[in-house]
Amino acid sequence: MKNQITNAISDFFFEYETPRQVLVRNRRVGVVCRIIQLGVLAYIIGWVFIYEKGYQSTDVAVGSVFTKMKGVGYTSVNGSERVWDVADYVFPSQGDASFVVMTNYIITEGQKMGKCPELHGKHNCSSNADCEGGSFKRQMTGECVNETKTCQVLAWCPVEDDLVIPDPPMLMSAENYTLFIKNSVTFPLFGVSRSNLVEGIDAGYIRKCLYHPENAPLCPIFRLGDIVKLSGFNFETIATVGGAIGVVVDWTCNFDVAVTHCKPKYTFHGLYGNPAETDKARASVGYNFRYAQHYMEDSIPKRTLFKVFGIRFDIIVQSLARKFDIIPTLTAIGSGVGIFGVATVVCDLMLLYLLPKRAFYKNMKFKYTDTYVQDPDSEAGSTETEVSKK
Amino acid sequence: MKNQITNAISDFFFEYETPRQVLVRNRRVGVVCRIIQLGVLAYIIGWVFIYEKGYQSTDVAVGSVFTKMKGVGYTSVNGSERVWDVADYVFPSQGDASFVVMTNYIITEGQKMGKCPELHGKHNCSSNADCEGGSFKRQMTGECVNETKTCQVLAWCPVEDDLVIPDPPMLMSAENYTLFIKNSVTFPLFGVSRSNLVEGIDAGYIRKCLYHPENAPLCPIFRLGDIVKLSGFNFETIATVGGAIGVVVDWTCNFDVAVTHCKPKYTFHGLYGNPAETDKARASVGYNFRYAQHYMEDSIPKRTLFKVFGIRFDIIVQSLARKFDIIPTLTAIGSGVGIFGVATVVCDLMLLYLLPKRAFYKNMKFKYTDTYVQDPDSEAGSTETEVSKK
Amino acid sequence: MKNQITNAISDFFFEYETPRQVLVRNRRVGVVCRIIQLGVLAYIIGWVFIYEKGYQSTDVAVGSVFTKMKGVGYTSVNGSERVWDVADYVFPSQGDASFVVMTNYIITEGQKMGKCPELHGKHNCSSNADCEGGSFKRQMTGECVNETKTCQVLAWCPVEDDLVIPDPPMLMSAENYTLFIKNSVTFPLFGVSRSNLVEGIDAGYIRKCLYHPENAPLCPIFRLGDIVKLSGFNFETIATVGGAIGVVVDWTCNFDVAVTHCKPKYTFHGLYGNPAETDKARASVGYNFRYAQHYMEDSIPKRTLFKVFGIRFDIIVQSLARKFDIIPTLTAIGSGVGIFGVATVVCDLMLLYLLPKRAFYKNMKFKYTDTYVQDPDSEAGSTETEVSKK
Repeated sequence: MKNQITNAISDFFFEYETPRQVLVRNRRVGVVCRIIQLGVLAYIIGWVFIYEKGYQSTDVAVGSVFTKMKGVGYTSVNGSERVWDVADYVFPSQGDASFVVMTNYIITEGQKMGKCPELHGKHNCSSNADCEGGSFKRQMTGECVNETKTCQVLAWCPVEDDLVIPDPPMLMSAENYTLFIKNSVTFPLFGVSRSNLVEGIDAGYIRKCLYHPENAPLCPIFRLGDIVKLSGFNFETIATVGGAIGVVVDWTCNFDVAVTHCKPKYTFHGLYGNPAETDKARASVGYNFRYAQHYMEDSIPKRTLFKVFGIRFDIIVQSLARKFDIIPTLTAIGSGVGIFGVATVVCDLMLLYLLPKRAFYKNMKFKYTDTYVQDPDSEAGSTETEVSKK
Repeated sequence: MKNQITNAISDFFFEYETPRQVLVRNRRVGVVCRIIQLGVLAYIIGWVFIYEKGYQSTDVAVGSVFTKMKGVGYTSVNGSERVWDVADYVFPSQGDASFVVMTNYIITEGQKMGKCPELHGKHNCSSNADCEGGSFKRQMTGECVNETKTCQVLAWCPVEDDLVIPDPPMLMSAENYTLFIKNSVTFPLFGVSRSNLVEGIDAGYIRKCLYHPENAPLCPIFRLGDIVKLSGFNFETIATVGGAIGVVVDWTCNFDVAVTHCKPKYTFHGLYGNPAETDKARASVGYNFRYAQHYMEDSIPKRTLFKVFGIRFDIIVQSLARKFDIIPTLTAIGSGVGIFGVATVVCDLMLLYLLPKRAFYKNMKFKYTDTYVQDPDSEAGSTETEVSKK
Repeated sequence: MKNQITNAISDFFFEYETPRQVLVRNRRVGVVCRIIQLGVLAYIIGWVFIYEKGYQSTDVAVGSVFTKMKGVGYTSVNGSERVWDVADYVFPSQGDASFVVMTNYIITEGQKMGKCPELHGKHNCSSNADCEGGSFKRQMTGECVNETKTCQVLAWCPVEDDLVIPDPPMLMSAENYTLFIKNSVTFPLFGVSRSNLVEGIDAGYIRKCLYHPENAPLCPIFRLGDIVKLSGFNFETIATVGGAIGVVVDWTCNFDVAVTHCKPKYTFHGLYGNPAETDKARASVGYNFRYAQHYMEDSIPKRTLFKVFGIRFDIIVQSLARKFDIIPTLTAIGSGVGIFGVATVVCDLMLLYLLPKRAFYKNMKFKYTDTYVQDPDSEAGSTETEVSKK
């Protein structure tokens, strides 16, 4: 018994099966099939391996972004001069990946809680009856104010008048502000960390550089006017009504070469609506929000309300790293061999069903067992009943 | 020599190998194997191709979200009326994808830096000795205040009393606020950008529409009460203690059909804890944070402290786009052919080891070389030593 | 006709083809090929299936994070004591996944809009001529102030003096603050939701626990000093100049076992720059931003400007869940069979081109059709022209 097992094992190890094949010497079939096979081979090597880099596994990064604005704005309204620094025009102030730079505003100073008539054009009335009920947007008192012919509301008074948006924008100088982006990415699968302050981008370079798509593509300091122009917008338009711009930091890296070749690429595009389209065709353009500074005056809580129009910047980190990996390589090869099998099937079909000599080839390729042998009870004699056409 | 190479090449191109096969005419084996093969085929075509769409490659979008709240709240405490508008109840104010709508609050007005006794119940003491040391949560002065029998602390005074949470919530009117979501997504692999203001959702429609799961599934304006109800919460409960709700904008798109079919779907669900569970069973329910408005009164810095209870909304963009791609198609086919091979192996095992006539089939399938031929030194004569059973 | 089709179908179902094979009984070839085949098998089973878990499909979670800080800071400057509570030192206040804890600051109180000279060292001048033009960073008036020998600017006055950063940091007590993280994740593909308050982490446990990598790895409350130490920084350094730390919540889950085994793991690392490197070598270290509190004094708008140095925490949710799925299983098997085919091709090449007995094996494996048969017009007689070497 032990002998038998040893024999079986040695048989297994000393034997090797290989399929028997017919070598069809037919120019037409040969050329067609070889071309199909070469096509499959070219596809696997050229497309899957070289073009799509099927021998690499991919990873997406976990990233972190910090931003810092620089520059001051200046306004002069009715002879009252004012400057706007970073603490005034960036929302939120702590340097998030998504932030708003105020470029235009409607200011309503000294609001306090009270009752005042609505703006002309909103909630017009001729008598108190028109001002009943009210809506969730306004807290009506139910009184119609004679002077303005509008309903009285309980609100922060005086109510904001935002009918006219200042044009040109109040802070046109925002064009010259600069944005500094600090971005670090980690590819957890490959254990690689990179920062956008790559080799050569040191403190000295940063102090004087300014991003330019061709001349300084790695400088992490961007002029706002440049960003807006590169994303296809007109600065004055977007500064007046507001808008949203995505700054994409693209990390497409191949870690089969030195890690220092892994560098960020910056691209810019509008986030809502295509800048090429006429803006008015869009259901909703512009970007604005309201923001209040609260203070106390003579023990009365008051606030200064800003309707802020601005450019919202979203720093979007996109990443895709690749590195040689045995699994996708073998999967690609294995699946390529499978497609090779499909090519063989196609050629066989041609050989067996389309060629004039198909009967001959069929005969060559197949060996037949007896037509519908019913499995006999005893194995013995089975070889005798065999009817092989060849 | 050149002739030889030319010959080899022409041989290669004019020849074609195809495996020789045994056509087993056995009903039992035939039926079983055909069923297995058809099963594999059905799996590949039906499941991998049609159901799982294995002929398509997939892409995930880069998205951008902007939100805007509308509506005013109204409170009347001790006869003092107040309205709360967007600038008062949304944190942060600039329209982020993640924001909090204040629905309830505990206000502590006129706090100034100083020494005052702790709230009753916290840091009780009977003598100064009890108030020594202190913790990182409070800056103790080491004195026990006789009147309250609590330790004195250095803090913004008076200290906040948050023992009782107002119920019903102060701003129950938040139920009628509306939320407008602007979301744009870009699928970088396919070069497609979409906005949730899809075809037909124009300015006119937006002005008067309100989201409804069935009647207006594409309207980007949502009533807060509806969102809370659709995520399975009770508005009054969540408004009182606070909570977090995820608004998922789902972009599942098939770009093999027209891009206009790619439309967002909105779903809503609670983020922390299952609303169906009894809330008290959870380790931590509610959502609140503290926020201060600083001001100067009589040259003394003071602040108004809010303990804000609110609903935190996270707009979560989920996306998966698919489009026909040659690589996954061929990979699926190739790997399908491989599984076909497995089916053949299973049938062969049955044929060669299970059937009564196995010896016969083995004989048909295999041709044997001489038992353990030792590679002779010379090739010549090798054909003579061949012992083929057939 | 109908009979014919029935016959063809019954033929198809009652027949089964299996390739004919040569069983090469050659120890050398046998051993080499079996080893190659066993290697491929070991790779497929051991590596693809067991190690890489190729039988599972993967999913990434959609998550939501809420944070809450606790603790008070204390400063005493020129005898003026002050405490800093959560509403003072956390930016933003509403408990975002990314926030800043102020650890050091430069305060400039009582700024109002006006004209004042620049700080010494910035924009030095000897005459008005030096102060012309100006830059986008400052709004110059064009006047040179005699006393300071610096240009006069229109700005919030007095200008901030940030030449000296307080060291040790003002709020060294930040080391003892605690951070509470609430994180929930949903794996949409598998329909599983988990929270970092897993089974056993109830309200009672949370009240008294503190995260420790070994003793309390699931406690969601972290001491700031611990986080900084675990990410390799020195607290005093990072508190003085600021820094950014990523808190990674890692959900690596296998849903083939009970869902309760799916637990978060917390890791900590510096986000910008390697803490092990000498910090000065980096182009840009530290983290700071400016933030203003606006108020009104004697009807003049004033502000208190903070240059905030702090630790920015980014709570990063990383997730990868796996579960058995039939598609990747069959794809792995199918592609494995394909690689098996490659092994066969390698062995065949050895057999047919390298062995001394290659001619014999070639003969065994291949059957040749007539050399370059030109497809005759008539099928008849084709069998006669067959020249089979065997």
